[in-house]
Amino acid sequence: MPNDTPEKPTVAATGEFGLIRAVTTGRRQPESTLLGPGDDAAVVAAPDGRTVVSTDVLVQGVHFRLDWSAPEHVGRKAVAVNLADVAAMGARPTSVLVGLACPADTPTDVITELVDGMWGEAERAGVGVVGGDVVRADQLVVSVTALGDLEGRQPVTRSGARPGDILALCGRLGWAAAGLVVLGRGFRSPVGVVNAQRYPEPDYAAGPAAAVAGATAMIDVSDGLLADLGHLAAASEVGLDVRTERLEVHQRLREVGQALGADPMSWVLTGGEDHALAATFPPFADLPEGWRRIGSVTMPDTGVTVDGEPHNGEPGWQHWR
Amino acid sequence: MPNDTPEKPTVAATGEFGLIRAVTTGRRQPESTLLGPGDDAAVVAAPDGRTVVSTDVLVQGVHFRLDWSAPEHVGRKAVAVNLADVAAMGARPTSVLVGLACPADTPTDVITELVDGMWGEAERAGVGVVGGDVVRADQLVVSVTALGDLEGRQPVTRSGARPGDILALCGRLGWAAAGLVVLGRGFRSPVGVVNAQRYPEPDYAAGPAAAVAGATAMIDVSDGLLADLGHLAAASEVGLDVRTERLEVHQRLREVGQALGADPMSWVLTGGEDHALAATFPPFADLPEGWRRIGSVTMPDTGVTVDGEPHNGEPGWQHWR
Repeated sequence: MPNDTPEKPTVAATGEFGLIRAVTTGRRQPESTLLGPGDDAAVVAAPDGRTVVSTDVLVQGVHFRLDWSAPEHVGRKAVAVNLADVAAMGARPTSVLVGLACPADTPTDVITELVDGMWGEAERAGVGVVGGDVVRADQLVVSVTALGDLEGRQPVTRSGARPGDILALCGRLGWAAAGLVVLGRGFRSPVGVVNAQRYPEPDYAAGPAAAVAGATAMIDVSDGLLADLGHLAAASEVGLDVRTERLEVHQRLREVGQALGADPMSWVLTGGEDHALAATFPPFADLPEGWRRIGSVTMPDTGVTVDGEPHNGEPGWQHWR
Repeated sequence: MPNDTPEKPTVAATGEFGLIRAVTTGRRQPESTLLGPGDDAAVVAAPDGRTVVSTDVLVQGVHFRLDWSAPEHVGRKAVAVNLADVAAMGARPTSVLVGLACPADTPTDVITELVDGMWGEAERAGVGVVGGDVVRADQLVVSVTALGDLEGRQPVTRSGARPGDILALCGRLGWAAAGLVVLGRGFRSPVGVVNAQRYPEPDYAAGPAAAVAGATAMIDVSDGLLADLGHLAAASEVGLDVRTERLEVHQRLREVGQALGADPMSWVLTGGEDHALAATFPPFADLPEGWRRIGSVTMPDTGVTVDGEPHNGEPGWQHWR
């Protein structure tokens, strides 16, 4: 990370303990944080007797670019993608822990703004940032672990979908993918799609609501709808058919698609990073608020189809390519 | 990381999902793992209704070197340093999650051996590797989060020491520091100190045992005895006096010190990475097995003293220097 304002203090000058003070002082923890940062480990309430836990790592240049996103956006995104995984189990997120690796010449401001973004998203979700680690590395790497509480329910895994179930979605799709194309062409607007690329704003309550409504399987849509439905179909050993007439292609996505000569439906079907939730429900379930039917669970071995046909092309983001 | 055997498969060729299969297939989870890897999140038993949780990040070239340590050692170390933090709260470790970032040309073997080391240490501790993430980066970064169960006890924080308490230690000190000097001089033996530098072997049961015995404060000695006692003294607002005649300087450390012209007592007092536990106990406590008295808790504002005198020099490892 270039430090073009050398008069500003760097993390090396601020030091580990100064940095920890800077990012923890004055923060308000929720009730579920029984012991916050500052000791060897944190203590988080787990009233259900089980803890849901997930971890994700974001790397500068791979998962975010600091010329496209402000540090605050990166912090928001790092927390959001993890909390979305917890919500996708039907759990209520309770806390996050943060591992930060960055070059010694990183301006301290970059780290404090990044952590501000983490706290912003944590507060939006009602969770605490309960601990972390800050170390030196050649590249900015942000690792987040999120914990959640099942509130007495069974976890909603990827493997419970049954033929005949409803396939449903909560949240928007295609926005982050459109934003990626816009940013890649050197534009900074429309701000709606650009900000969608910078950080998602998942509806964390939608996961527990789906669990309460009897969801049989659920997944966080991180890599792209068809890619993630592929994981759900494989785990459940079912087919899934998506009906495109039930997928919303927002007017803004149509405009951006037209301006850039791209098909907005492909963003909706295969674009990642919006962190909508996809779930299956029993045939006569009442879908919770915000959830809408987008297709059906079909017989095994048909894979994921779109309007009854196999999809041509990549189903979503390819890791390691 | 140089890939000098290009015929071997790399993580890029193996891909994220192949890699996840390679490192999760055939692993046996303990009973506390209610849902292991493969879904959006894992589910871990938290019978106490609280979860102890800690995270640490290790970076190649900063926290380990692959010319000094095998990938398996790095995996062991990454898990051990986190489990030690959980034990230092008086909790029984239950599980770890792993975030791995590495260059695309990293041989797949390096990652599978690293994860083998993680599983080795996890099995030694009786915990499960319940989840993780594998992403691309310029440098190998290993992030681990450890969870633990308090078994109905109060967490033993750094802040409960009282004047008159016994200061006690469980585990060895100075070995990893001696190993670092040996490796730095280009030697690969004596293997005892070299392996101590490669990975610690904390006694995880010693933390809960100290809690049961009434420990008033506890800390994982990661940066060096005097440095970490400084954190405990500050948090408890007490002084701590270490008696050098009570600190074991093992014959092997004396030999290495003599051979290299170094003072082995300075390794014991300020060397990091052995992950012994230091704790304070009420004056008439029966110390659990493996714990021995090394000093006393004194009045506030005297800081950490050695044989009643202030220590000259750095108290331990300095982050960001």
